[in-house]
Amino acid sequence: MLKNKVQEALARYGLLSRGQKVLVGVSGGPDSVALLHLLNGMRKELAISLHAAHFDHGLRPGSSRDRKFVEEFCRKLNIPLTCGSAPAGSLCRGGSLEEAARKARLEFFARAAKRFKASCVALGHNLDDQAETVLMRIIRGTGLYGLSAISPKRKIGAITLIRPLLGVTRREILAYLRKKRLSFRTDPTNLGDEYLRNKLRNSLLPLLEIKYNPKIKKSLAALAQTSSLDYEFLEQAAEARLRRMGGSIKLTRFAALHPAMQKMLIRLVIARSQGDTRRIGNIHVKEIEDLALRRPRGSLVDLPKGLSVLKGAKKLRVLRKARLPQLNRLIKTK
Amino acid sequence: MLKNKVQEALARYGLLSRGQKVLVGVSGGPDSVALLHLLNGMRKELAISLHAAHFDHGLRPGSSRDRKFVEEFCRKLNIPLTCGSAPAGSLCRGGSLEEAARKARLEFFARAAKRFKASCVALGHNLDDQAETVLMRIIRGTGLYGLSAISPKRKIGAITLIRPLLGVTRREILAYLRKKRLSFRTDPTNLGDEYLRNKLRNSLLPLLEIKYNPKIKKSLAALAQTSSLDYEFLEQAAEARLRRMGGSIKLTRFAALHPAMQKMLIRLVIARSQGDTRRIGNIHVKEIEDLALRRPRGSLVDLPKGLSVLKGAKKLRVLRKARLPQLNRLIKTK
Repeated sequence: MLKNKVQEALARYGLLSRGQKVLVGVSGGPDSVALLHLLNGMRKELAISLHAAHFDHGLRPGSSRDRKFVEEFCRKLNIPLTCGSAPAGSLCRGGSLEEAARKARLEFFARAAKRFKASCVALGHNLDDQAETVLMRIIRGTGLYGLSAISPKRKIGAITLIRPLLGVTRREILAYLRKKRLSFRTDPTNLGDEYLRNKLRNSLLPLLEIKYNPKIKKSLAALAQTSSLDYEFLEQAAEARLRRMGGSIKLTRFAALHPAMQKMLIRLVIARSQGDTRRIGNIHVKEIEDLALRRPRGSLVDLPKGLSVLKGAKKLRVLRKARLPQLNRLIKTK
Repeated sequence: MLKNKVQEALARYGLLSRGQKVLVGVSGGPDSVALLHLLNGMRKELAISLHAAHFDHGLRPGSSRDRKFVEEFCRKLNIPLTCGSAPAGSLCRGGSLEEAARKARLEFFARAAKRFKASCVALGHNLDDQAETVLMRIIRGTGLYGLSAISPKRKIGAITLIRPLLGVTRREILAYLRKKRLSFRTDPTNLGDEYLRNKLRNSLLPLLEIKYNPKIKKSLAALAQTSSLDYEFLEQAAEARLRRMGGSIKLTRFAALHPAMQKMLIRLVIARSQGDTRRIGNIHVKEIEDLALRRPRGSLVDLPKGLSVLKGAKKLRVLRKARLPQLNRLIKTK
C-alpha cells in the first residue's frame, strides 16, 4: 500500500513533525498529484497543514493548461495554491537549461514557503527518478557524492526539502492514481529522448530490467541510500577535522591525512565558499589536491562560479576572482 | 605508452620495491603475456627478479595447450615457470564455479610464491576488467565495498597481489602485443555470452560506449578508485573505533554511532571471524544491524560459511554454528 510506504518513509527519515506547515510542489504530473492527494488524506493523523505551490517554467506551449489543471485539483481538495512563473526569457535554452529551471523553481518554492510560514517543501520524486539519477551519474562519471543522488530530506538555506515518495515506484503511483480515479498531466518532454534522463527511462533501464536484473531500479535506489550515509559520515568526519584545523586547510597537516579525507576537506571548504558543492566535479577536487600536495606556493586553481583556490605559505585559500589583485600579499603572509 | 603507464602505477601505489622477487601469474591470455613481457623488459631498472606461474583449471578441453604455450613463452624469455592444476573434479560446475576456480588459483599462487620466496604476485587485470566488475556489481546491487572492485594492491594472507595493468585498457594491451609481435591464447569462454561478465563485455558496454559515453570504462574505473579510498577511510575509522570498544561490538555504544559506522563495524567483525568479507552482502549487514538495534537479547542471525551472529546481553558475538549448544550460557553472561 502506498500510504504505508509513505508512513514508513516519514518515520524513518523524520520528514514531518506534528503541527508543521507543509508546502507541496505540484506540477500536475502523476507524482505530485498523488503526493498532494495522499498528504491531504493523512493531514488529520499527521496534524499538518498543507499549501500547494505550482511553478510554470514557461518553457513549452500549453504549460498554462497545467496551471489550470492544478488550480482545479487544489480547489476540489480545498487546498490553498500559490502559482508562480519564470520571467519571460529568464530561462534560455541551452546546456544548463535543466539546472536553471531547477534553480528558478526552488527559489520560487522558498519564497512561497516563507510567505506561507512553511519550514518544509514536499516534492514528488519517486524511486524511478532516484534510479535514473544514480544511473545517469554513473554513466557520466561520479563518486560517492554523485551516487547519493536524491536525498529524502535535505536542508537548503532556510527550507527543508522532503520527498516522501522516494521509496515508491512510478508503477505504484500510477496504480494509486487509477484506484483513486485521479487524472494528471503528462509532460510531453518526458516522452521523447530529449534528455539523457529520458533516454535512460525509455530505453536503457527497460533493457537492464529485461536482460540483466528485473530489480535493477531497487538496487540503484539502495546504492543511493547507502552512498548517502557513507558520504554523510565522511562529511561529518571532515567537518570535525576542519574545526580542529581552525576552519581552513593547513598544508602541513593536510599532507598527512588519508586521501579520502583530503578530498572531502576540499569539497567542504569549496562548499562553504559557494554555498553548495554543485558543479564541483571530481576533476576539480583532484586538481586542488594536486595544488595542495605538489605545486609550489602561489599556484592557483580556477573553479566554476568565479572562485579560485590559492596555495598560500601555510594554507589553502578560496577566493573570489575579484580579490586576485591582493594575491601577492596573501601568498607571502598566509 | 604502456611502459610509462605501468611505471606510473608502480610508483603511485608502491607496487614493487627494489630487490623484490615477483611471481607473475600467466594464463597465456593477452593480459598476462603483455605483463610478463613488460616486467621482463623492466627487470633491470626495477631491480626485481621474476618467476612465472601457470594454473590449469582443467575446466575445458585444450587447456593443456595453454600450458604448453606458456612454457614455450617463458623459455624464450628465460624466466623460470611453475605449473599447477586443479585436482580432477575438485572444481565442480555450478553457481560458484568462478569463485571456486578463483580460490584454487589463488591458493596455487600462494604456494608457488612461498616456494620461490616471492612476497608478491603480479596479475594481468586491466582497466576493462575493472570497468566490467564495477558495472556487474552495480547491476546486481552493491555498496561502497563492491564498487571498490579490483584493487591495484591487496594483501591476502602472507602474499600481496599487485595489478600493474589495472589502469591500462585492453585495446592498449593488444596494441602492445601487436607491436612486439607477441602471440597469445584466447579463452573460448570469453567469446560467448556464458557469464554475466561476457554479456557486459560483448553487448552492454559497447552499447553504453556508443550511445551514452565513449569514456564509460574510464568513468567506471575512476569510480572504483575513489570508492576504494572512501571504503579504506571508513574501514580505518571503524578499526580505530573497534579497538576503543575492546575488539567487539558493545551494544549500548553501537546504538549511538552513525549508521555508516555501524555497517562498517559489522563488516569488520565478520571479516575477522571468517577471514574476509566475501559473500557478506548488504542484506546480511542490514539484518545484523537490525539484530543489534531492534531485536531482543538472544536473537540470532545466520550467515554463509557456517557463521552466526548472536545478540548477547552486552555485545554482539560471532559464532561458528558448532558452538550453538553453548548459546544459553552466552546469552546470559555476555
